[in-house]
Amino acid sequence: MANEKKTMSIIVHSGTFDKLMPVFMLASTAASMDTQVNLFFTFWGLNALKKGGLKKAKLPGMMSIGTSMMKGRMAKAKVPTMDEMLKMCRETGNVKIYACSTTMELMHVPKENLIPEVDDIVGAATFMELALNSEVNLFI
Amino acid sequence: MANEKKTMSIIVHSGTFDKLMPVFMLASTAASMDTQVNLFFTFWGLNALKKGGLKKAKLPGMMSIGTSMMKGRMAKAKVPTMDEMLKMCRETGNVKIYACSTTMELMHVPKENLIPEVDDIVGAATFMELALNSEVNLFI
Amino acid sequence: MANEKKTMSIIVHSGTFDKLMPVFMLASTAASMDTQVNLFFTFWGLNALKKGGLKKAKLPGMMSIGTSMMKGRMAKAKVPTMDEMLKMCRETGNVKIYACSTTMELMHVPKENLIPEVDDIVGAATFMELALNSEVNLFI
Repeated sequence: MANEKKTMSIIVHSGTFDKLMPVFMLASTAASMDTQVNLFFTFWGLNALKKGGLKKAKLPGMMSIGTSMMKGRMAKAKVPTMDEMLKMCRETGNVKIYACSTTMELMHVPKENLIPEVDDIVGAATFMELALNSEVNLFI
Repeated sequence: MANEKKTMSIIVHSGTFDKLMPVFMLASTAASMDTQVNLFFTFWGLNALKKGGLKKAKLPGMMSIGTSMMKGRMAKAKVPTMDEMLKMCRETGNVKIYACSTTMELMHVPKENLIPEVDDIVGAATFMELALNSEVNLFI
Repeated sequence: MANEKKTMSIIVHSGTFDKLMPVFMLASTAASMDTQVNLFFTFWGLNALKKGGLKKAKLPGMMSIGTSMMKGRMAKAKVPTMDEMLKMCRETGNVKIYACSTTMELMHVPKENLIPEVDDIVGAATFMELALNSEVNLFI
């Protein structure tokens, strides 16, 4: 059956709340369907992997003021928070979290500042290899 | 020949004119090539499925003022409007339109406010199943 | 071995520095791994193919002021510039550059204004054909 496991790889380039939400929604949903998920956090997306980063993410531009209203609606609709979805992802054992090494250097983010859920710090070539063997690829 | 029909699935996350245009361009083009197309409208993208939503879509941020100029150029170049492309999509019978159930709840959009072209209201798991069986997946 | 060559196709819709960087990073990385790469520059992305366009690209919105700081950090980290990555792409012989014909008409961009590295000016149908035969598809 191992051969039949499908894979989704997402390049997480955005750091805003509206883009990170679907990343974790899709990742936790796919993982619960026994799909392998690879998340590669790069550029603005790297902020989501900093300690406390998921809580700080805001809606983009002038919408940022609406972030807490959106969070309130999500709580009321019993949609899990991103921290909760990250935990769900980890519990399935199907989701790998990668931080982009080049972004860490450019944004001056040392390893110690990243959350412990990061599986590895890799470059574009390593992720490209995963992408070429995935059924679904997304750039978010 | 049924087996040879290819599929493109697009997660339509954006609600701005510049992003919705390629969604409908790609969908109508692929559908006319006898490719199956699945469009899943989520987050800001759901606005496009509200009655009159496609007409209201604007270029992002400070560019929004240029929307009518862009529409004028499109008319002159005989590029169909998004409403026309949606109609073309439907006429091929190859394009399915899905509204995201979670977004409808979070954005307080009742079913009655959506255009009749919506085929179904589904969650992420249903769409994920389609994505895993598509040749092309895009997040727009 | 020809049959084993994999393909990545990217729809380059964005014209900002933060989005064009990963386009050229991914393209040059994949090309160096002997993957065929197709880049289709459309909408804002077409600006990148204008003469001098890559040098003019800026970070989005209010971040635009940080573009030169980012370029300074990239130079210090020995990350190639986008012009250099474009050159690397071309030298592998694995990267095809396509300009969107509809965008050229809508944005009033004549062929003479494009860089000589453009392989062809094509419409959505031509690109769709390439996308349907690619292992990785991205919309950036």
